[in-house]
Amino acid sequence: MMTKSSHVAATFAAKGDREIHIERVFSATRERVWSAFAEPDLIAQWWGRGNQLDVERWEFEVGGHWRFVEHHDDGVDGFEGRFREITPPERLIYTFDWDGMPAYVAIDIVTFEDLGDGRTMVVTDAQFHTPEERDGMLAPGAERGLKASYAALDALLARTG
Amino acid sequence: MMTKSSHVAATFAAKGDREIHIERVFSATRERVWSAFAEPDLIAQWWGRGNQLDVERWEFEVGGHWRFVEHHDDGVDGFEGRFREITPPERLIYTFDWDGMPAYVAIDIVTFEDLGDGRTMVVTDAQFHTPEERDGMLAPGAERGLKASYAALDALLARTG
Repeated sequence: MMTKSSHVAATFAAKGDREIHIERVFSATRERVWSAFAEPDLIAQWWGRGNQLDVERWEFEVGGHWRFVEHHDDGVDGFEGRFREITPPERLIYTFDWDGMPAYVAIDIVTFEDLGDGRTMVVTDAQFHTPEERDGMLAPGAERGLKASYAALDALLARTG
Repeated sequence: MMTKSSHVAATFAAKGDREIHIERVFSATRERVWSAFAEPDLIAQWWGRGNQLDVERWEFEVGGHWRFVEHHDDGVDGFEGRFREITPPERLIYTFDWDGMPAYVAIDIVTFEDLGDGRTMVVTDAQFHTPEERDGMLAPGAERGLKASYAALDALLARTG
């Protein structure tokens, strides 16, 4: 993994009683970071913590659906959702639903901020239906998983930069 | 339409700031009312306000998906979601997402109460992510649509009783 220690560590914190606020800076332009979230062949290289990821469905339009299956040492995990807003290269809003707890749906509002120095901050506000669902996602495993995926994205951006 | 004036009118009311609480009594046993929510050939006869309803997807298991398309005078409307809980004949929990506002997902918690006199009360608690989304569903059209569907369900139960 080609993570760089100079990268700003991810912020992963509760916000209000039903949200999680996440910030992470990447060493790439906003257009390149947007592409890594928008193009399935790139997504497959980082989204699943660097593990094999099958993009089973990718309808990148408002109302379209997405579905990924991650293959890891303990088996497989499916994730899916639907797109609410696609505003390149600024904002992406979609639903997020994990097969392990189906129909507990979060809304991910992802904003791409151009830092003006060739870097980009990705801000995610995840909105849950209940405080209990939000608290479930504050478990160490979820944060660790996201950080592993972002490290894989660092590596992807470094090798394609 | 074979609605009976003796039926208890539906309650359709705000609850807290992000929920809608709905109650409706049907003149049929709990098992028969459950079946009308669980069997796609029956659902098709009432869910779309009595209009033609295509059941495009019906995976009636936890984590399974459903998708209906209603054909009406002004065109078509698609609705879809995923099942969270199926506890016959007591409780059904699923997500609800309308194509017209995709990825604004509500959770419908539907409880079937045996009133002990051959009638059944269907109680629906619909949970929204934001107060604005909830208020949007309090519009007269949504309540009118639900009442028309419930009237079609009255008619179905009467002709199959």
